[in-house]
Parts: sequence; C-alpha cells; structure tokens
Amino acid sequence: MPVNLLAPVATDLHPIAGVRIGVAEAGVRKAHRKDLTVFLLDEGASVAGVFTQNRFCAAPVQVSREHLASGQPIRAMVINTGNANAGTGADGLVRARATCIAMARQLSIAPEQVLPFSTGVIMEPLPLERIEAGLPAALADASESHWARAAEGIMTTDTLPKAFSTQVEIGGVTVSVTGISKGAGMIRPNMATMLGFMATDACIDPALMQQLVRELADSSFNRVTIDGDTSTNDSFVVVATHKAGNASITSLASPEGRALKAAMLDVAQLLAQAIVRDGEGATKFITVCVEGGKTAEECRKVAYAIAHSPLVKTAFYASDPNLGRILAAVGYAGIEDLDQSLIDLYLDDVHVAVKGGRNPSYSEEEGQRVMKHNEITVRVVLGRGYATDTVWTCDLSHEYVTINADYRS
Amino acid sequence: MPVNLLAPVATDLHPIAGVRIGVAEAGVRKAHRKDLTVFLLDEGASVAGVFTQNRFCAAPVQVSREHLASGQPIRAMVINTGNANAGTGADGLVRARATCIAMARQLSIAPEQVLPFSTGVIMEPLPLERIEAGLPAALADASESHWARAAEGIMTTDTLPKAFSTQVEIGGVTVSVTGISKGAGMIRPNMATMLGFMATDACIDPALMQQLVRELADSSFNRVTIDGDTSTNDSFVVVATHKAGNASITSLASPEGRALKAAMLDVAQLLAQAIVRDGEGATKFITVCVEGGKTAEECRKVAYAIAHSPLVKTAFYASDPNLGRILAAVGYAGIEDLDQSLIDLYLDDVHVAVKGGRNPSYSEEEGQRVMKHNEITVRVVLGRGYATDTVWTCDLSHEYVTINADYRS
Repeated sequence: MPVNLLAPVATDLHPIAGVRIGVAEAGVRKAHRKDLTVFLLDEGASVAGVFTQNRFCAAPVQVSREHLASGQPIRAMVINTGNANAGTGADGLVRARATCIAMARQLSIAPEQVLPFSTGVIMEPLPLERIEAGLPAALADASESHWARAAEGIMTTDTLPKAFSTQVEIGGVTVSVTGISKGAGMIRPNMATMLGFMATDACIDPALMQQLVRELADSSFNRVTIDGDTSTNDSFVVVATHKAGNASITSLASPEGRALKAAMLDVAQLLAQAIVRDGEGATKFITVCVEGGKTAEECRKVAYAIAHSPLVKTAFYASDPNLGRILAAVGYAGIEDLDQSLIDLYLDDVHVAVKGGRNPSYSEEEGQRVMKHNEITVRVVLGRGYATDTVWTCDLSHEYVTINADYRS
Repeated sequence: MPVNLLAPVATDLHPIAGVRIGVAEAGVRKAHRKDLTVFLLDEGASVAGVFTQNRFCAAPVQVSREHLASGQPIRAMVINTGNANAGTGADGLVRARATCIAMARQLSIAPEQVLPFSTGVIMEPLPLERIEAGLPAALADASESHWARAAEGIMTTDTLPKAFSTQVEIGGVTVSVTGISKGAGMIRPNMATMLGFMATDACIDPALMQQLVRELADSSFNRVTIDGDTSTNDSFVVVATHKAGNASITSLASPEGRALKAAMLDVAQLLAQAIVRDGEGATKFITVCVEGGKTAEECRKVAYAIAHSPLVKTAFYASDPNLGRILAAVGYAGIEDLDQSLIDLYLDDVHVAVKGGRNPSYSEEEGQRVMKHNEITVRVVLGRGYATDTVWTCDLSHEYVTINADYRS
C-alpha cells in the first residue's frame, strides 16, 4: 500500500499546449497492459534531460543522449514498459535506434528527433516488432489531455500512477507545469529517476534548459532512494513548449526564472516523493534530514547511509525505536574526522540522542509513539558546520522481498 | 537455517597452551543465557587487534584500542553479549573502563592489561553491576578446553556457534591455531568482524603481530558482507602464546611465517565465511569473484556492489536467474571508465553474458539450474586488466526482515 499517495485525477492535470500524449497496448511482455506511450511535441519545443550514471546504462539511454546531443529539435518520445533494453549489448542499440526510425517514419521526421525510453526486465531482447505494430494505435490516441493515461502507461511494479501539476503566474501570464513519474524498485537515482517526464508551456531561453533540468533533478529525483540500486534506465526529461505567451525567461536567477523553477521543483519533488511513497513494499515515508555538516555533500553521505541501511529500514517497518542503528549508520557514512561526541539525533520532535549518547530524558515510549506514524522525520545534527541536506526514503518490509523474489514470475 | 554449517565439536578444537577460557550466565539482558566470556592469557602472550572503522565506534572498542596502544602486556579479555555499549557517550566509556578495573582486581593486574568487548543492542546503558557480579563464575570456569563454550558464549542472533581449529608443522614442531567468531547481522566488516578471536601457541616475533592480524583480516573478515551495515563493535583479535617451542618466526615472508599465516588464514576464512553461512535469514552462500580489473580495489568495489544489492540478493533468495540485476550493480559500482561492452558474466559454470549482452547460447533453464543450489559463485570478468578479488555474501530473505523487525522484542 502506498504511503499517503492517491491516484491522480485526470481533470486536475493541466494540459500543456504543444504536448500531445497517446497510449496503447502493444503486448511488449504481457497482453492487455497499457505498455506503450508516445509524446508528440509541437515544432519549437525545447527538450533537455539527465540520465543514469550507471555504466551499464541501457541502450535507449545511450540513444537518447546521442539524439539530444545531435542538436536536432526533439519532436517525439517513445516509452515502453515490460522490457528495459539494458544488458543487451550491440543488438540492444540496434533495436533502440530502430524504434526511433519506426516512429520517425510515422511522423515524417528524422530518427534523431525521437527519444526512446524503456523500463522493465533487464537482459532480454526488446520485442521491436510489437512496439512498431503498436505505434499507430498510440499515435491515434494522442491528446493534450492524456497526462493521466501516460502516468498509467509508464507503470511497472508501481501500484499507482504518479502525476502532478501546478500553475504559476509569470509576468502576468499563467504558466502550467505538469509531470509524471514511475518507480518503484531499483531506485537510487544518480542524476535522474527511473523515468520522469515534465513539461511546461512557459517561454524560456532554450539555452537554460539543461541547467534547469539538472537543478530540478538534484533537488528532487536525486534525493530519493528505495533500495540503493541505481537503475540502468534512469531518465528525467523536461520539455518547454514556449506557448504560454510570457516574456521569455533569460535567467533562472531572475524573479521570473525563480518563480518558474519553484513551480517546477514543486512538481518534481512531488513526483520524486511519490516514487518513494509507492516504493516496493513501502509502509512508511521517511524524511532524513542531516544538519550541521561542513558541506552539503557530507550531509548527503550521512543521509544516504541512514536511508540505505537495511537495519534502519527494517526497524522502521517494525515501528521499533531501535535508534542505535541510525547512529551506527552515521558512523560508517564515510566522514573520516567525525566526532561522535558532537552528534544529536531527533525523531520528529523527540530528542533521542545528545552528544553521541542517549538523551537522559528520552523514553522508549516517546520513541515508540513516533515510530508508529507512517510519515517520520529523522534529524541528525552533526555539530561541525552549517550545511544541510535531505533525502527521502521508505522502510524495508516483507512485501519488498516478496515483490523482488517474484518480479519475473 | 545456516547454509552448510555445523556446530563445532568441542573435541575437534585444539586447546592453545597459555589460553584459558571461562563462560558464565550474567543476565546482561536476559536470564539463563551464557552471556559473559573471559579469556585469560599466560604471561608472555602477544596480542594484536583490528577494530571497526565506524566513527560511532563503541566504548569497548575505544578502550581496547587504548589498552593495546599502552604497551602493557595484555593478560585478559572480557566479552559480554546482550548490550553493545555503543551510542552511549561518555558514560559508556566509564562503564567499559570499570569492566576492566573489575576484571583487573580479580586477577591482580593493571586495568590496561584487560581488553573489553561488547555486542548486542546499541544505545542502552551497559549493566555494569551484572557483569561485575558474573566475573567470579566466569573465572572459576576457566579451562584451556573451553573454546566451544566460548563460541557459544559470544553468540547474539547467531543460530550456531562458530569455531575452527587447525594444526601445522613449523620447523618440526606442531603448532595449533584455534578461533571463534560471531555474526550475524550488521555485518559489513571494515577492518574486522563483529567479534573474532584467534589464538596460536606459535613462537613469533611480537613485532609481527599487528601486520599478521591486519593481513589475516584483509583476506577473511574484510571480505564478507551480509547487509552492508558496518557495526560499531567489530573487533578481531589474535593472540600468540609462544609456547609451541618452534624457533621464533621473524618474518611473515619466511617459509615458517608463510606456513603459520596460511594455517591462520584457513581458520580466519572459515570463521568469516561461517558468519555469512549463518547470516540473518541466509538460505544461500554466494561467492562473488571479480576478475580482469585494473586493480584489486576496483574488483572489490564491483564485488561489494553486487553483494550489497537488495535486488540481487532477493533474486538469489527466489532462485530466479534475473541476472540483469547483477549487470546493473556492476554498472553502478563506481568505476568511472567502465566499458560495458567488455564484460562477461558467469554463474558457476554457466556463461550468462558476453561482451555486455546476453550470451546467445545461454538458456533460462541453465540459469535456473544453478540458482537452485545453495552455494553459488558469481564470476564477473571486467576485461580491463589482471587484478582480481573475492567477497562472500548471502541472500536476502523474508527471514532477514522478520529477524530485524523483531530483534529487540
């Protein structure tokens, strides 16, 4: 059961002028599943993306990177579930390119104007002919109002589709931002999530797009983890269609740039957190906040050590305030000159540890009270500086083992 | 159920002249458990140890380090289970020192001649008075033939005691080596395991002891992982009593030094592997062998990435040859310039992946056949050099979650 996450309501999602979406059942792995999604972008749209840092990155990731680097304007994206086209060698690259060629033929554009994305099982050949056969139905389905369908179309082990939307006024003009994402395992994004797509109709200098997508990813998808496994297929793509009519944004530091980025970050964080809320087997949503570090990077290291510890995660699952496990994770996070006698630990409002030892006024009952919640904030104060960072994660449950022991069967 | 591990037979364990061991029930956490173990060393014994690199290291680790560094000859060790005396701040240090003082009084030696060790729950005050009260019974129990009792006395969530023993002829003299260890969770030793103790009666230059313990740990306890959680209390101690009568070994590179080290490494590896075989919830024993790296360090990184991946571990649990998960872990292990098109993957004798893609002659049935074994070797060939390294681990099962969700209840 996802933690405080509801399925999106289609009418709550603002269409983005210039972005049409179609979904079809192509039978990639199983019949009768919406497993093929296409995005069609009007001429003039700007597109930027960040991709997995996994050196075993999937073929579609390699092809998407190439096509973005080619400088040709991107006009379409093709996303299939059921097969990740990763660990597939040279043959996988051929199939990812063939997907783009097939889509390009349908639209009379160049193959380099298409970005391919795949998610699902690793190390099995992509069933190209099924994807090709499914494209006409997906194109026929294309509509600006299909964001909710797309959120459903990119799901794998997700139990709920994930889509968020907002609007913001920029220079007197209402600008819309809408995005979708999917999880739900092999999640420790290192540059981007498994799959995330966002679009805005805002007018913005295309030269700012790469900086924008990077900054958005760094404060959203790059701050969540479920199992610490960085996927082969992580991709996060942002589209700007420039159709809202606002005066074009020329700097992300300007008031207009900040307003747009804040609105987009709201959506990106909700999408990233939704992946954790719907993490495989998740029963709790945990915010790990590390303060008082010398650098944000060392705070992040500590936060990830806590967020990845199977012992911490099973303690949360059991609602057991076995909080020494958190201190142990702080200790092995990799800060060479960490002084344990400066460290404080809080669980929500409860002050658990003082100067590296148990707070004399802390009681097991207080810890127990907080641990029973399904949203909990762990706050570690390192006492060595003024930097801070935050990571979102979930617990480790029986259900996680069940899901991943049975995923392919 | 431990994987291919049997309880030691007391009569198979060679006594070490000059080492007497006593065990008692002190009621540290629960009544009627052997939870207090003492080692008494004859005058002249040499002792060296390696300890956790966790910056939140436990109070007894800090005190043991101090006492070893003091240069005073070590004459006794006190080990309690039920409480780790970690995350206990300044008060924890006082209690660890008080344990040494109490033991020193019993033996009329200096407190610095005692090493304290604790294992169990973190962040709870050590019940010093119970340990003090238990010492006379433990001392009264002391005998050279009590290694098997000691293996039992240091258990926490272990399901079986772990003890191994061997003999080797050095310069015409029979030398004995005996050791014990405990696991079984929070295991990703970074210098040593949770607790490991070994002794030999060999004569060896005391100046070689630190090098010896370090080299033994690096090829045994530092090559196993269960859940990636480096403990606050890892300690591995080696004692030489110099009573065998062989000509004193003056170099580990001499034929005699090599022979002794090989015998000790046999025991150390068996002890380390026993911890994995009895890993919390383990149903399989996995050897991860990485070859063809530029350095042993990068091979180790890759091996640990595979050994720590919850997705890989749950696939082993399910006997599911979902082997793309192994390639994904190779990809995120942190080798910046890794070329996926050079990588081969084997599961026991089955050649699964060739040049980064699925081996055309590989069949799911072959993978399935190997995955059903309870001892499996994963072999990754990186194709970039001649270095190699090996790590031992286990799978991730429902039982792991159950154990760690219930540990304190």
